[in-house]
Amino acid sequence: MLGILGGMGPMATVDFLRRLVELTPALRDQDHLPCIVAQATGIPDRTRAILGEGSDPLPALEAALRQLEGAGATCIAMPCNTAHHWHGALQARTTRPILHIVDAVADTLMRSRAGDAPVGLLASTGTVQAGLYVERLARRGIACRVPEDQEAVMRAIRLVKAGALAEAGILLSASARSLLASGCGQVVLACTEIPIALRESDPELRLRLVDATEALAEACLRACSRPLAAARLAA
Amino acid sequence: MLGILGGMGPMATVDFLRRLVELTPALRDQDHLPCIVAQATGIPDRTRAILGEGSDPLPALEAALRQLEGAGATCIAMPCNTAHHWHGALQARTTRPILHIVDAVADTLMRSRAGDAPVGLLASTGTVQAGLYVERLARRGIACRVPEDQEAVMRAIRLVKAGALAEAGILLSASARSLLASGCGQVVLACTEIPIALRESDPELRLRLVDATEALAEACLRACSRPLAAARLAA
Repeated sequence: MLGILGGMGPMATVDFLRRLVELTPALRDQDHLPCIVAQATGIPDRTRAILGEGSDPLPALEAALRQLEGAGATCIAMPCNTAHHWHGALQARTTRPILHIVDAVADTLMRSRAGDAPVGLLASTGTVQAGLYVERLARRGIACRVPEDQEAVMRAIRLVKAGALAEAGILLSASARSLLASGCGQVVLACTEIPIALRESDPELRLRLVDATEALAEACLRACSRPLAAARLAA
Repeated sequence: MLGILGGMGPMATVDFLRRLVELTPALRDQDHLPCIVAQATGIPDRTRAILGEGSDPLPALEAALRQLEGAGATCIAMPCNTAHHWHGALQARTTRPILHIVDAVADTLMRSRAGDAPVGLLASTGTVQAGLYVERLARRGIACRVPEDQEAVMRAIRLVKAGALAEAGILLSASARSLLASGCGQVVLACTEIPIALRESDPELRLRLVDATEALAEACLRACSRPLAAARLAA
């Protein structure tokens, strides 16, 4: 059974669960993937910890992992990009596989990319500072680039956490457009708060966005679905 | 910690979690209510069981309850109206309080009602047949009335479970309007699939709808929130 280590933030987890339901080919409740979700809102801020400004989230991440294991989870997903800084430490503490969100994004990019243009990265300052995407995408031959005004992206992420979606959407659209204008082929929404604010963005822009939340949901369905759904997703 | 016995259906649980996040006064992740969610999609169909056409969901409901208890839940909510037919049986099997969705709706109605007009009920055929609302609202002096074409409501609920929201919305709007035309003062959306399909309905109609999902989310915040949120909700 899929276990979701969530709450980072809580609306991002809701958004992830929505994608999981929407992406499942289903006519009735019983066709959907059962899962257990820890909406662990108390986990200390990941970006602050990476920047050396806040407490270590690892103990709280591990406590949520134990809750999920205790409830019977056999495969874990974390719908928070920045928390993947602790992916290795968490994986070392459990025998259950923890899907990696950057690998899920890389799989999506390998299918959708045309040419060698770098991809743009809209991510938390923690994710950027920790080099989570740069290193892991480089292994797949994909270069990536961050916005000149990274501070605006982080401000937008905090606005989403406070429920100010429209204001956040304006900042994030501008950052995405400026990455595309600088020569990026696609822009990865590499923080699970970001797609919540860009849901209403214009269709032409959306075509060039790669959504990490959706990529992780697809990876979960591939890893955990019954044959029908898996076959449809592979098609 | 709040435990959510969900998956009935899975999108209804997502909708409930969204309300819980949106209704919480919060600026950052850590202001939100932590919770544990069993997305228990395999629970047998509640309406079929009440109509004597399907297997008993109680063992699967109890298994999900045990998962939540094991993960540390101290208060339980079930975002599925029909499942409340087994509320008494589940409550007898645990010392943790299980909030009752009809009581949450009754609290909302006591605050918002003007006059003695009956309330209309859009609910699954299981909820109607089991008399879940009629009896429990009568104790609070509230009469309720079901649509003439109950079969259309049940058809719409199954459409939501299959993802056909627009088609379901047309059926449900018509049923709500006909209850209001027959003299009901308000219409209770007494199945957690229903508000998902009526989200885009016209504002004038929406003003006369009482949403059981939202009522249950408010009851959870009152029961489980820290003082700040509780004070704001009481205001």
